[in-house]
Amino acid sequence: MESEFMRILLKLGFQEGKAQTCASVFTNNSLEGVLSHGINRFPRFVKYIRNGHIHIDAEPELVHSAGAIEQWNGNLGPGILNAVKCTERAMELAKTSGIGCVALANTNHWMRGGTYGRQAAKAGFVFIGWTNTIGNMPAWGATDNKLGNNPLVIAIPHNNEPIVLDMAMSQYSYGQMEKMQLEGSKLDFAGGYNSSNQLTCDPAEILESKRPLPIGYWKGAGLSLLLDILAAILSGGLSTSQISQKQDEISVSQVFIAFDIQKLSNFPTIQNTISEIISDYKNAVPADQHSEIRYPGERNAAIRATNLRNGIPVNATIWIEVLAL
Amino acid sequence: MESEFMRILLKLGFQEGKAQTCASVFTNNSLEGVLSHGINRFPRFVKYIRNGHIHIDAEPELVHSAGAIEQWNGNLGPGILNAVKCTERAMELAKTSGIGCVALANTNHWMRGGTYGRQAAKAGFVFIGWTNTIGNMPAWGATDNKLGNNPLVIAIPHNNEPIVLDMAMSQYSYGQMEKMQLEGSKLDFAGGYNSSNQLTCDPAEILESKRPLPIGYWKGAGLSLLLDILAAILSGGLSTSQISQKQDEISVSQVFIAFDIQKLSNFPTIQNTISEIISDYKNAVPADQHSEIRYPGERNAAIRATNLRNGIPVNATIWIEVLAL
Repeated sequence: MESEFMRILLKLGFQEGKAQTCASVFTNNSLEGVLSHGINRFPRFVKYIRNGHIHIDAEPELVHSAGAIEQWNGNLGPGILNAVKCTERAMELAKTSGIGCVALANTNHWMRGGTYGRQAAKAGFVFIGWTNTIGNMPAWGATDNKLGNNPLVIAIPHNNEPIVLDMAMSQYSYGQMEKMQLEGSKLDFAGGYNSSNQLTCDPAEILESKRPLPIGYWKGAGLSLLLDILAAILSGGLSTSQISQKQDEISVSQVFIAFDIQKLSNFPTIQNTISEIISDYKNAVPADQHSEIRYPGERNAAIRATNLRNGIPVNATIWIEVLAL
Repeated sequence: MESEFMRILLKLGFQEGKAQTCASVFTNNSLEGVLSHGINRFPRFVKYIRNGHIHIDAEPELVHSAGAIEQWNGNLGPGILNAVKCTERAMELAKTSGIGCVALANTNHWMRGGTYGRQAAKAGFVFIGWTNTIGNMPAWGATDNKLGNNPLVIAIPHNNEPIVLDMAMSQYSYGQMEKMQLEGSKLDFAGGYNSSNQLTCDPAEILESKRPLPIGYWKGAGLSLLLDILAAILSGGLSTSQISQKQDEISVSQVFIAFDIQKLSNFPTIQNTISEIISDYKNAVPADQHSEIRYPGERNAAIRATNLRNGIPVNATIWIEVLAL
């Protein structure tokens, strides 16, 4: 998979190192089971390069430094490359100041936010980051999509596989709902309002009404709004409202915060503390005897291990589409 | 109300300045309609002082400085005083470094987290903070309370009244559910599982099962876990698991992050950006023509204005209880 991505990116004119990073991220996202932001999204990434949305040679540049917080311009480069760079830079700032923040304007979709949380946590840093998006979710009590689903990522170093929360503000993504509609299955919980203003578990009704439900109703809607405002004002970039005035989702705003836990007085005991919390958590009494209590990122790590042994299961149509690129 | 609180706190032996701050915070929380963490909670605050949980003369102290992040020990002082001090200190660090973080161990309940968000935002800073709590919510798929509801606060300066999100990870608080049970009313949305493992809108069933629902099901549960781990490891303080081993909720861990937006290159246009986002948001099409689309904190500001004119409506039994303290 990675070599196919490499072939295509080099053909598109990517420099080798940049092609390698993008190919690796798309492959790793697929490897960890996040196909929606791995191989399934790769054709759209190529399309956005071809139609000029993504500038493959653009480099992110420092606009303004205010100590431990910096503002960067992504210059509409590939979102993956900008996000990898800004995560690195946030860690460098944290090495100096204990905490470091990079706010990035004018970038493109970072694919899977957990990628950058994992990048930082594997390097020993705590990570908090988020992105805004095009409008795709209604304000609470509204029918039109003023809010983005604005995924929030928190990652914490833990043994070999970090704890990684990667959480969009909508209860279900459009990708998940489309998949379940195709399978003819219902959502486990209400995923939105239908056109008659009733909560529904039918993905087809939500895809029609375009009213996906924010997590926690008014709470997730509120969190989405504030993450958008923060991304826009800290970076000086576009808000969901401004992005939504474009035809496609380009020029989003992102925030990357790293904490250098090596600088903390309790650093020698931090891994013990985390292990104790996780151990206590996993010892919870399950409602269903046969189900396991999992922490965020645990399932992805398990899928990674399985797929490394058996290969990555992909949709045949999409694989053929990629081979033809 | 404030002078009654003053009288009681001075009688308990508080220094005048500290009594003033606590009385003001309890009163302002009540003024903004958050009675559960205002007057209704005041008797328990007094009880915790009397039984030695809260040390009224304790001062928070710096344990370790790592540049823009500092670790403080709350020495079991009043949570309000510790939180006010750490919010101030986070702003001082942000004035130097653009972003500042104080992680506070060994403190007590801060009452309403929004208080500190509002404090920072009124001073012109962006604020992100959270606290862990005693276990009061199950892990996703579990029946026992391994997780806290760990409220997360984000605040942003905006005209005279900041935008303040103050969001516990449970869909409904125990206080809200107890109130609705007394009124004989049902929750608008499922608020937990009953003892038969079914989602329910009946507050009595959830109060019996002790299985309140996390916002967004597995998502809020995951966010709660990570906020707890972060609070514990950044501060070197106790985790929800450790706090839960005590009989009462004492010695919690908190995080206070401030951003000095005056240091950003786009500072002159930030208030315009925020106003544009809020204006677009409030122009959403309401599902119900008669309902208003509100941003987080807007309702509290309206209640403040009303109560400043008409007085704060309180429960007579609680008011008599306070007068008798």
